[in-house]
Amino acid sequence: MKKFIPVLLAAACAVSAQAKIVTKSVEYKQGDITLEGFLAYDDAVAGKRPGVLVVHQWMGLTDYEKHRAEQLAELGYVAFCADIYGKGVLPKDTKEAGAEATKYKSDRALLRQRVNAGLDELKSNKFVDTKRVAAIGYCFGGTTVIELARSGAELNGIVSFHGGLDSPTPADGKNIKCKVLVCHGADDPYVPAKDLAAFEDEMRQANVDWTLIKFGGAVHSFTQPMAGNDNSKGAAYNERADHRSWAAMKLFFAGIFK
Amino acid sequence: MKKFIPVLLAAACAVSAQAKIVTKSVEYKQGDITLEGFLAYDDAVAGKRPGVLVVHQWMGLTDYEKHRAEQLAELGYVAFCADIYGKGVLPKDTKEAGAEATKYKSDRALLRQRVNAGLDELKSNKFVDTKRVAAIGYCFGGTTVIELARSGAELNGIVSFHGGLDSPTPADGKNIKCKVLVCHGADDPYVPAKDLAAFEDEMRQANVDWTLIKFGGAVHSFTQPMAGNDNSKGAAYNERADHRSWAAMKLFFAGIFK
Repeated sequence: MKKFIPVLLAAACAVSAQAKIVTKSVEYKQGDITLEGFLAYDDAVAGKRPGVLVVHQWMGLTDYEKHRAEQLAELGYVAFCADIYGKGVLPKDTKEAGAEATKYKSDRALLRQRVNAGLDELKSNKFVDTKRVAAIGYCFGGTTVIELARSGAELNGIVSFHGGLDSPTPADGKNIKCKVLVCHGADDPYVPAKDLAAFEDEMRQANVDWTLIKFGGAVHSFTQPMAGNDNSKGAAYNERADHRSWAAMKLFFAGIFK
Repeated sequence: MKKFIPVLLAAACAVSAQAKIVTKSVEYKQGDITLEGFLAYDDAVAGKRPGVLVVHQWMGLTDYEKHRAEQLAELGYVAFCADIYGKGVLPKDTKEAGAEATKYKSDRALLRQRVNAGLDELKSNKFVDTKRVAAIGYCFGGTTVIELARSGAELNGIVSFHGGLDSPTPADGKNIKCKVLVCHGADDPYVPAKDLAAFEDEMRQANVDWTLIKFGGAVHSFTQPMAGNDNSKGAAYNERADHRSWAAMKLFFAGIFK
């Protein structure tokens, strides 16, 4: 006889207790521009393993993304935080962040070059199985990983967490070679209904393998504790949606990294 | 040193190899009407465990739902297929099915009574932990489990697979006490955009804990092999969406049956 055990509890047990996470800053280039990313992997894992690119929100590459990379390393992946803005470019407030993000959102070609440089850097890591690679991103980074897909990059999948979904060139959806998961706050005021509808149409027209999850009660930035917890501001942390979207990402990875 | 193992593979290993699934038909009543449900559980599991109600699509309680109940029993749950139409009522074609389903869709009070009778029958099973109960349903059954929630029934969660989302009384959303997961085909022509929007508003207004997953490329009946594979008919099986929605359901159960 056995006792009932919820099936997914067992998954938690599969995470090693002997994880030894190595982290370091890594300089790399896009054209003449020096970028500074952040690498994390578990030194106790042998051999090649899937790689996951992490793209930062509008404040640039912060401890938040570094912590996500460490969490991914604990799951057994090689994680690399891309730097889109350039070494030392860290907006000091939301005004600067808006200006910096807009540079790239209004020049998608440049944004694609920057994020592809990060992907190349990740793939060049000796521990990465280059046939099993994904990218995730938060807010601005969510938009960025969708642009990575639209650039025709070779990877298995992308996950956008509360990213903007608009595209100035929706026909580029046809370039997408990877699976797409969008984790979206159902009450996110920064992603208008028309953008959602246009995104869905882009995916549909291009016959992309896509899934979109709407988390009830969640607004923009729902994965980010630093956003506070006041939904009326339009951006706020939502623990429930944070945990569920992370679990959805793990399930997505289990599917694409078979 | 350890090799990389995708985290969720471990979950599969948690399913017992010694499962001994017991199944049987069960007569029960709603008022004076005799209903005939179907019970499935694993005889190798000791003690009480969560219970899951399964509600059939418009053709009535068929082998399809019985197989789902067996799959749920293999996961360790007590599964019970409700009978909404009544003992021996099995539409012989889609015309009869449409007429039968319409009886209940146009009399939501009766539909709620019928599905609550099934829930009561499940809860009366000696192996069911009545504090851990969910309901799932397909097409007409998806609509039905949402009505079950709207009736104010005491259970932990419901999952609708390609169910209709409309409500003649959207204010009843305020009665919902359980968590709600909707698995929806992004190309389902039988659930108009206005119904989706109204459903989301109903959940929002009532402050329900809800999640909606849109599966790209999927139409109505995407979990049902008997629907064929021609999307142009508006109802078709989609293996990808079937497997992913089942996995999403398991993740949802892991959350509500803690």
